[in-house]
Amino acid sequence: MKNSKLQAFIPLFYLVWSDDLLTQKEFTTLKEFIASRNWLSEEDKQLLLSKIDINTPPSREDLKEWKTVIERSIDDKIAIKSIFDVVVALSDKDMNIEALEPDFIKLENDLGILGEEAISNFKTKTGSFTATSQTDSHFDIQKITTLLDGDQAPIIQKVKSIISRPEFAYETGTDIDFYREKVLVWCKILAHENLGNMAYPKQYGGGENIADYFAIMETLSYHDLSLVIKFGVQFGLWGMSVQSLGTEKHYAKYLKDIGSLKIPGCFAMTETHHGSNVKGLETTATYNHENQTFTIHTPHEKAQKEYIGNAAVHGEMATVFAKLIIDGHDYGVNAFIVPLRDTKGNTLDGITIGDCGHKMGLNGVDNGTISFDQVVIPKENMLDRFASVNDKGEFESPIPSDNRRFFTMLGTLVGGRIGIPRSALAAAKSGLTIAIRYSDQRKQFGPEGGSEVPILNYRMHQRRLLPSLAKTYAVHFALQYLTKRFLNRTEEEMQEIEALAAGMKSYSTWSTRDILQECREACGGKGYLSENRIDALKNDTEIYTTFEGDNTVLMQLVAKNRLSEFRKAFGEMGSFGIINYVYENAKSAIAEKNPIATRKTDEEHLLDSQFHLQAFIHREKTILASAARRIKKLIDGGLEAYDAFNVVQHQMIEVAEAYLERVVLEQFQLAIQTIEDVKVKEILTKLNQLYALSQIEKNKAWYLEDGYMEAVKTKAVRKMVNQLCWDIRPDAVALVNAFAIPESCLAAPIAV
Amino acid sequence: MKNSKLQAFIPLFYLVWSDDLLTQKEFTTLKEFIASRNWLSEEDKQLLLSKIDINTPPSREDLKEWKTVIERSIDDKIAIKSIFDVVVALSDKDMNIEALEPDFIKLENDLGILGEEAISNFKTKTGSFTATSQTDSHFDIQKITTLLDGDQAPIIQKVKSIISRPEFAYETGTDIDFYREKVLVWCKILAHENLGNMAYPKQYGGGENIADYFAIMETLSYHDLSLVIKFGVQFGLWGMSVQSLGTEKHYAKYLKDIGSLKIPGCFAMTETHHGSNVKGLETTATYNHENQTFTIHTPHEKAQKEYIGNAAVHGEMATVFAKLIIDGHDYGVNAFIVPLRDTKGNTLDGITIGDCGHKMGLNGVDNGTISFDQVVIPKENMLDRFASVNDKGEFESPIPSDNRRFFTMLGTLVGGRIGIPRSALAAAKSGLTIAIRYSDQRKQFGPEGGSEVPILNYRMHQRRLLPSLAKTYAVHFALQYLTKRFLNRTEEEMQEIEALAAGMKSYSTWSTRDILQECREACGGKGYLSENRIDALKNDTEIYTTFEGDNTVLMQLVAKNRLSEFRKAFGEMGSFGIINYVYENAKSAIAEKNPIATRKTDEEHLLDSQFHLQAFIHREKTILASAARRIKKLIDGGLEAYDAFNVVQHQMIEVAEAYLERVVLEQFQLAIQTIEDVKVKEILTKLNQLYALSQIEKNKAWYLEDGYMEAVKTKAVRKMVNQLCWDIRPDAVALVNAFAIPESCLAAPIAV
Repeated sequence: MKNSKLQAFIPLFYLVWSDDLLTQKEFTTLKEFIASRNWLSEEDKQLLLSKIDINTPPSREDLKEWKTVIERSIDDKIAIKSIFDVVVALSDKDMNIEALEPDFIKLENDLGILGEEAISNFKTKTGSFTATSQTDSHFDIQKITTLLDGDQAPIIQKVKSIISRPEFAYETGTDIDFYREKVLVWCKILAHENLGNMAYPKQYGGGENIADYFAIMETLSYHDLSLVIKFGVQFGLWGMSVQSLGTEKHYAKYLKDIGSLKIPGCFAMTETHHGSNVKGLETTATYNHENQTFTIHTPHEKAQKEYIGNAAVHGEMATVFAKLIIDGHDYGVNAFIVPLRDTKGNTLDGITIGDCGHKMGLNGVDNGTISFDQVVIPKENMLDRFASVNDKGEFESPIPSDNRRFFTMLGTLVGGRIGIPRSALAAAKSGLTIAIRYSDQRKQFGPEGGSEVPILNYRMHQRRLLPSLAKTYAVHFALQYLTKRFLNRTEEEMQEIEALAAGMKSYSTWSTRDILQECREACGGKGYLSENRIDALKNDTEIYTTFEGDNTVLMQLVAKNRLSEFRKAFGEMGSFGIINYVYENAKSAIAEKNPIATRKTDEEHLLDSQFHLQAFIHREKTILASAARRIKKLIDGGLEAYDAFNVVQHQMIEVAEAYLERVVLEQFQLAIQTIEDVKVKEILTKLNQLYALSQIEKNKAWYLEDGYMEAVKTKAVRKMVNQLCWDIRPDAVALVNAFAIPESCLAAPIAV
Repeated sequence: MKNSKLQAFIPLFYLVWSDDLLTQKEFTTLKEFIASRNWLSEEDKQLLLSKIDINTPPSREDLKEWKTVIERSIDDKIAIKSIFDVVVALSDKDMNIEALEPDFIKLENDLGILGEEAISNFKTKTGSFTATSQTDSHFDIQKITTLLDGDQAPIIQKVKSIISRPEFAYETGTDIDFYREKVLVWCKILAHENLGNMAYPKQYGGGENIADYFAIMETLSYHDLSLVIKFGVQFGLWGMSVQSLGTEKHYAKYLKDIGSLKIPGCFAMTETHHGSNVKGLETTATYNHENQTFTIHTPHEKAQKEYIGNAAVHGEMATVFAKLIIDGHDYGVNAFIVPLRDTKGNTLDGITIGDCGHKMGLNGVDNGTISFDQVVIPKENMLDRFASVNDKGEFESPIPSDNRRFFTMLGTLVGGRIGIPRSALAAAKSGLTIAIRYSDQRKQFGPEGGSEVPILNYRMHQRRLLPSLAKTYAVHFALQYLTKRFLNRTEEEMQEIEALAAGMKSYSTWSTRDILQECREACGGKGYLSENRIDALKNDTEIYTTFEGDNTVLMQLVAKNRLSEFRKAFGEMGSFGIINYVYENAKSAIAEKNPIATRKTDEEHLLDSQFHLQAFIHREKTILASAARRIKKLIDGGLEAYDAFNVVQHQMIEVAEAYLERVVLEQFQLAIQTIEDVKVKEILTKLNQLYALSQIEKNKAWYLEDGYMEAVKTKAVRKMVNQLCWDIRPDAVALVNAFAIPESCLAAPIAV
């Protein structure tokens, strides 16, 4: 094709034949174009048409030659930006081809070719910036580990060294019985190392160190999660129920043996028909005056205890929650120690145990059902810290209301709602470590003619994992805060702390659920192989959103607590008036105080921690006031409170969520303020900004509806989230390494 | 307490002692209040204070008496709405207590009591409306089943009757080897029933009915999902690769035996180092001129075939994708039939098989790795429909570009991207049937003093499940549409259909992932027990978002196709100009055409299908134009195309998503137009409205940013979503029953 007119068609021919996106239709378009050009001779047309005959395609050599011709013509010519520019370059200088520009541009468009895109594939590479991003830690990893571990560093180190021993190699078989036994053996080792009794009084052989107990729960969660749940059932639920609900005589009799795992036991609260609504439990404990005993009884099949950990195989005793009946009067739910098996493992008379069988996860824990058929226990087995039966056979309690007494009892068990979210946090850390390390190594696709690129360099992949990494750091500090509040609690603060624990339990476990889902998908097929452990992490933690209180139910409780606090806070005025006032005030406050804030998009502002916190607080307050107002309106309109709360359930979740997000952000910010190391402070500040902005982005519909931000600002937030992901990417591997999870626990071959 | 001043305090005392939410702080508040009332005598004060001494609480009898007093005073008095009203009712008429109203209101607020809420618990119940909602189907279930099944009803019925046989009872053991064998046996039964060869030509013993083949895949998915994947690997991937990539000689030699499962086989494309980027496969097929054979070879460990279904145990042959090398020249990826095992199951020389081992799910499928060490196969084993080696040992192909040829080959395999989303759809239907039936029976909590209420009556629970139900119906009709488009495809439409299939594969499998997550949580602890099958449904489908193309990668392809179509559609003008034009036009069009539409919130408008479709189309077009403009700008600004597409990856996902949502809504609407039965049309119209509005709600941030809707409207949409959930709830059980899933397949005890 030496004819310059024909030369001009080479780039199009090449694209039509080589591009995998062009079809039959494009051939037709090109044919019609050629046929209708009046500046081509009939002979030229025939020649050109022959080159796009689907039945006689060009040879591979033709294609190669065309490519060479094109490359030569555009090499290093920056000015060439469209197919037509190539056409011009290929045609004779003296031919007035530039007049044909509209024709060729139209053809390009008809063919759906984006000239610049096609052209860039021929040019000499200046180096893709996507390809050049890579791991390059900018801070001292150990310093972050030290910060995360805090005062618990010694116990964390001790637990890590124990679970890294060879006997803690993961069980990879699918035999449930074997797995359950192995988990029991592991628990015995931990008991032997004095980890199980860490929270119990020194008087009964314990470590009297609740802070360490929680750190143990969290650190154990880097290992098998069945282990941590079995550990929690035995030493937390079973042991703590004795400690919190019982009295001196129970401590003396049981605590040492529980702590040493000599008495494996259960926490038997949930029944088939009553899980969330535990006030409705139906198991009875009837007082027998004649011999000062209680008869524990399951009135019907659906009142059996269900999902009880340690019940199916190992439990010898249980704390059983049952309605106390004296002389036909119901005194509400109380707790009793009931023996289930003898030391040889034989089930005792009147006890029927069922096995929950195979579960989605946690198959190393022997969950079971328990039914009682008129089981008689001595009076002393009543855990009598909050209620008792006196010598005359009369009910006695410092708390007259059955309801109130029951919730006081439950309140003492709030520790479980600290252990679980911390365990969930550890699982998220494991998942992120595996997924981020893999994504840093796994390469796929790349610039035309260049090497393949680590998938962590792709923006979507960063979006999947890095906001999750930021959130995990944020939750870490928030759970440290929750733990400290719990350890230093006063009676006064108990309700707030209970609500905070219920909320953080939901926030952390839902966060882990979402993060592990992303990790699984981010690791593709490798994430599906059990050897890489995302399987176990995901399926074991799946129930975390349900047990220790269903998250959705807990969030309603949190919201109710917030509403109640809100009302108290504005006690000086009539409640409806104040609600309206706060609501309206909040709405107008932004505009009045800073008319341009809703449209402010400069980088300094978007990254300002004060802006973040104020935005979170504004959302928290406004949603709360709005919910309070709506409920009041519904009830005034004649709805029963129960119905009114049902109508606003969806909004109640938002009330709780906005509160928790504010707490989490605030604690992350406060933690950063204490950091002295400049580099550590710098990277954690970036993570904090990413957490703040990605939450704002998630909630941007609310900010837009509220008028707190305008579209220009929410769009700028999105862009900044992308930018922060890109900026954090080189440090991502170092940031997960700072979790310092033992390699033997990570175990995933893809995370090496 | 006959003193009327003291009587007035009864309601407060009762609340303080009985309410589980009041604490120490409230006691203090109340004490201070009493102590500072100057209208109380010192004696009165002492008496009152004695009633709130934490050390001498009232007896249970006191509490009960107080309650009776309160109830008597307010019984049937509608006018009583606050605690203070009770105070008034309890005090002497002649006492001027009303003047004390501000005092008591302040106290209520300080205590955080919402009077109306507290009072409503004492009133005679008028009947909670939350409690009264119940299952009550308003249409003929069979008519919906008939509509869903369509022309495929006979084959669906046949498959259902086969998988309901006793020999298809689920495998509940955890032994992988046993499970794999059982799944093979099941597949053999299906082959024997002529279901495996349904899509093959009649000439080779097949049913030549691709529509029925897809219906089989979907219906089998009500049963074990390992079964459907093993079935798909054998008859779909392995058989169809021979049919699509091979020629007559291959059909004659293999198809019958593949269809009868006499030759179990594999589809060996993915390698450890190349999954999404299959163009980069490294396995080689080197042509040997001397004896007209190919040598198949794995150059290094990471080039082994991985995740290959049927490989670990059963496969005797495989379609292997490898780069064809002739005389040192690389001719791109082609497909070859390679024997792996003899009929006794012994691995052949040069073949090394690995086992992928335990997976998160699908453990009835024997996924494995395959390595080739200089394995020689005859020339005739090349699947030579698109490329071949002629007698002279020269490469021949009607498609000169290696790239284009490879994608043409892949295009013929698009059927897999129809089977998988339809299988995912069936899994979502199973999960929803289990979760909705359970939620209709499971009761928890209830109005004060009333019975417990089905959890499906709670708004959050409805929000969890009913939009998912609507989406599942929507996806059903969209997948019917995709299937019809595929069956009636012309060469012209192939690219569009390939993109649609890739997109619907992502849309359906992500939808199933989300739905099964909600189902698991909605069923609480029961959802975690393997016996209720959400475990298997969830874990088996987990990999659906990865295999047959990673969803995120596929969505990028869909978006690129949309961009290309967009450019073609506006061929008449210069591309940048037109993009700007469309973009700006779209933005102003709404306001110009209908200035009040952005704030329109009447019910008729919100439920109008035209409004829904226009909103979806507007979003689709605007996002597409915006992405096109942004990419153009980035490339013009000097970025390589590869980098530019990385920068906008997040936006590309939205381009694809908006397109798919529009298609799904449109097809659901079209399907409803064909319905004649009034009641069926009515309920499906409601479901369609719920799908449309819940998607708009999900995307409301976008609509607000774009200005297409204002806050007043997006808030009205949220309210309407709640209302539709409430309205659909009584029909929910009937709507899942209309899926007509065999009870033996559902199997979950909680779904009976």
